[in-house]
Amino acid sequence: MTLTTDETVLGAMEPHEPGNFATHATPLVRNCWYVAARADEIGRTPLARKLVGADVVLYRTEAGEPVAMRNRCPHRSFPLARGTLEGDRLICGYHGMEFEADGVCVNMPALSSTPSTVTVRTYPVVDRGPVTWIWVGAPDLADESLIPDLPWLSDDVEWGTVTGHFHIEADYVSMHENLIDQTHFPFLHPGTVGTPEYARSKLTATTEHDQVVIRRELSDCAPPGVYGRPAEIMHKRIDRSSEARFVSPAVHTAFARITDHDPDPGKPGLYRYNITHCFTPESNTAIHYWWFVSRDYRPRDPAIDRFMVEAHEQAYSEDLEALEWIMDVVRNDADPHIELSFATDKPGLMARRILFRLARKEN
Amino acid sequence: MTLTTDETVLGAMEPHEPGNFATHATPLVRNCWYVAARADEIGRTPLARKLVGADVVLYRTEAGEPVAMRNRCPHRSFPLARGTLEGDRLICGYHGMEFEADGVCVNMPALSSTPSTVTVRTYPVVDRGPVTWIWVGAPDLADESLIPDLPWLSDDVEWGTVTGHFHIEADYVSMHENLIDQTHFPFLHPGTVGTPEYARSKLTATTEHDQVVIRRELSDCAPPGVYGRPAEIMHKRIDRSSEARFVSPAVHTAFARITDHDPDPGKPGLYRYNITHCFTPESNTAIHYWWFVSRDYRPRDPAIDRFMVEAHEQAYSEDLEALEWIMDVVRNDADPHIELSFATDKPGLMARRILFRLARKEN
Amino acid sequence: MTLTTDETVLGAMEPHEPGNFATHATPLVRNCWYVAARADEIGRTPLARKLVGADVVLYRTEAGEPVAMRNRCPHRSFPLARGTLEGDRLICGYHGMEFEADGVCVNMPALSSTPSTVTVRTYPVVDRGPVTWIWVGAPDLADESLIPDLPWLSDDVEWGTVTGHFHIEADYVSMHENLIDQTHFPFLHPGTVGTPEYARSKLTATTEHDQVVIRRELSDCAPPGVYGRPAEIMHKRIDRSSEARFVSPAVHTAFARITDHDPDPGKPGLYRYNITHCFTPESNTAIHYWWFVSRDYRPRDPAIDRFMVEAHEQAYSEDLEALEWIMDVVRNDADPHIELSFATDKPGLMARRILFRLARKEN
Repeated sequence: MTLTTDETVLGAMEPHEPGNFATHATPLVRNCWYVAARADEIGRTPLARKLVGADVVLYRTEAGEPVAMRNRCPHRSFPLARGTLEGDRLICGYHGMEFEADGVCVNMPALSSTPSTVTVRTYPVVDRGPVTWIWVGAPDLADESLIPDLPWLSDDVEWGTVTGHFHIEADYVSMHENLIDQTHFPFLHPGTVGTPEYARSKLTATTEHDQVVIRRELSDCAPPGVYGRPAEIMHKRIDRSSEARFVSPAVHTAFARITDHDPDPGKPGLYRYNITHCFTPESNTAIHYWWFVSRDYRPRDPAIDRFMVEAHEQAYSEDLEALEWIMDVVRNDADPHIELSFATDKPGLMARRILFRLARKEN
Repeated sequence: MTLTTDETVLGAMEPHEPGNFATHATPLVRNCWYVAARADEIGRTPLARKLVGADVVLYRTEAGEPVAMRNRCPHRSFPLARGTLEGDRLICGYHGMEFEADGVCVNMPALSSTPSTVTVRTYPVVDRGPVTWIWVGAPDLADESLIPDLPWLSDDVEWGTVTGHFHIEADYVSMHENLIDQTHFPFLHPGTVGTPEYARSKLTATTEHDQVVIRRELSDCAPPGVYGRPAEIMHKRIDRSSEARFVSPAVHTAFARITDHDPDPGKPGLYRYNITHCFTPESNTAIHYWWFVSRDYRPRDPAIDRFMVEAHEQAYSEDLEALEWIMDVVRNDADPHIELSFATDKPGLMARRILFRLARKEN
Repeated sequence: MTLTTDETVLGAMEPHEPGNFATHATPLVRNCWYVAARADEIGRTPLARKLVGADVVLYRTEAGEPVAMRNRCPHRSFPLARGTLEGDRLICGYHGMEFEADGVCVNMPALSSTPSTVTVRTYPVVDRGPVTWIWVGAPDLADESLIPDLPWLSDDVEWGTVTGHFHIEADYVSMHENLIDQTHFPFLHPGTVGTPEYARSKLTATTEHDQVVIRRELSDCAPPGVYGRPAEIMHKRIDRSSEARFVSPAVHTAFARITDHDPDPGKPGLYRYNITHCFTPESNTAIHYWWFVSRDYRPRDPAIDRFMVEAHEQAYSEDLEALEWIMDVVRNDADPHIELSFATDKPGLMARRILFRLARKEN
């Protein structure tokens, strides 16, 4: 399905009809690789985290391999994250049951012989660059080749990357739709990324398998401050192209390319920005969110790093505050409500249709 | 129905039987004019408020007309109270949709032409003296002539009025019953309005259409402090009459008349007090409450104003604290409970029967 | 049923099957004497407390007799604990209804004659030594001879007793199982009572009517610090026997006997410790817990008192923190869970089977 926006009201959605669109209430898609944590958050102190509805404890073996287990001893429900690590084993703090990194119980001290069939569920986890991915869905579907390929995050020679984390009281459906949608920029982000021309620029939105790709082109325009200022090209007219991608329920990427056809001496003609949004729902009403902004020039310039952190924290804070306000409305307003959508919402709705379909397959 | 109290146990109520009495759990009556706010609370900064279960945003046009809209953008559920006013239009803070005071969307900036059929629900609102009334029920029933007539609140020549506001965790059914009932005065308000003689005084209670009127007469008695002290007649014997009225689910009035048959030179023979209780449930367990105490003498005497505020804040605080304690019991006590009523509860039960009937008509 | 532990996995429990084991979700057993309060907590100021799901107000008559009433006026649900005592009568704070200690209303001031049939439910309460017992279940089953006999708590000549109180967010089923189980000692209490030999010592567990008795014997061993240090016998080898008893849903006792076969001059050959755990669920997720540690030597030695308080507060805090962590897991983990038990859990499961059966009889 490919579309170009035409400007009509799409009419009211009936979100729970078959063939329709995910809302905050749609069951979470579990058969998907989600970010469990920044890789450096996981270490030799067990870390408890709720991920896609699953209570998980995360730690590393002595060799540094990440481990994710259900954070509940199968014996008396003690949270294993309150236990201790001995070598690669996680020891329950209540009765001392010892679990290997594969979840097999190898010692129950109160018993003279260890029962051979006792295990705690483990979840596939994989380190990739700065993050660790987890699969909380059906284990037999946990194919590592499905982990989104984000090579710029692991490349600190060519790319300079800054990052941040938020925990928010909102749903991942609204979050995806917010990231796909740029028509809100002039209103929610008037001081940062919003320019009305960009919000109105023509786009194409394409569904590719279970991804949605939105492309925009702008020629001979002023650079947006967030990209132009660190590159010191605010006095130039530039061409601008962008690709926003609903990669999976867990990931959204945005690539921005700024072309300066007449670069000053010693400066590049092309500036690339790759923005990576990873978010993992705790539940239908809360999200862990990690963002990464990568640039392909002056990768170790601390002043640019600082600028990028500040500008993006500001913009994302505005989005997240809005999403929390919306969640609050959705939770507390008991009056009937029918959601209204416009042609400009189509790209977001394409993603919500995918989320709906993926969730339906599991439930 | 007219009755005089006779002193017998009315027996246990079965509150949910047809023909019976509203309780805290009865659906709120929505087809009624309620106070939305003090008129001066509503201005050019949008004000969010939950009123009779509806999430509402309140503001004024440039001409000063009050506007009440649903506090939820029909597009992506952003709370409109977080938006901004431009002229008479409320602008959604998310995508910049512009709503006129009649709720019609007149601009959606992301679209080149404005869709013609998009609206947000508005609610009839009317300024009357110090308060603004709202109708959140069926729009076609919103007849302004149904707004209770409280002319003394708008007359600051003849009347001196003091006012106050509380937000309480209680139900409006208990609140109405508390206001109708005076047998609790000696116990809940021993230091203020309670005298046992008054509590026991004979009353008549009459249902007039959907109102309940309770009348009491006392002759040749000592004045109650709350009325006698500001009038400086505590040394006199007076006659006293009162009318308490369940006006509507939203309003209770109490008129007190103190007659001094032998007034001192230059002093009146009659002192009138009109007390107006406006309360608007947020939900079945919380209320906005505005009270007004008006007197017909020395209307601009600040010392009397201060006395009236202090005395009534004290008494009302005692009532509201008790109602919150009761709400807490009702919510947390899971054991079966059958409410017991006495003949002295009849006036309150007459009001609860009306509330029950009005609620049933809507549900 | 008598068993000795043999070390095999018992397999997964299906807790809600008939004939099975109580969990935190099993209805509370109400036909049982529970501790309502320490006797000295109940006095001439009404005390509100939730006990086994019942909202109760506790006070004493002028003669010192304990009274327990439902904390809800049958008239308008005012919490009677917010009222006042006049002589033996509890006066409702709302309309002044007066209830005698037997729950009969003897005055309703708003009425000229008192209705003869109005009562508030009272609950049987009995003082026994330092505590007051209550029966919130079926009144006709409240046989005082069922109150557990704990004579050492009332004997301060032979016995020195220290005590403490906790309020915890946990369920009484887990609490009972925790007290019966000693295999957790080395892990949860490594610094206090835990020794691996003791945890592994052979035990017998016997069901006697609706009680479970667990007996352990250890010969020629080092004394545990918590008993050996106050007795100043840490340099000795001793014999040790213990009896832990699930007395009722409300009480668990533990008797420890330390035998010194070669006592120093002037010192006893036998040290007795009686530990009494009384706990009363508020609900399925919260408990009032009173503990008592009694010893049969130097009963008025304040240094030993201090030691016993500190050592036991420490150990019990560790248990209670663990039980709260588990409650938190059980409440928040929505994924399916099947509880796994081992042979060492049998004594606890015997108690949970009794709790299950008692609850089933009532529901």
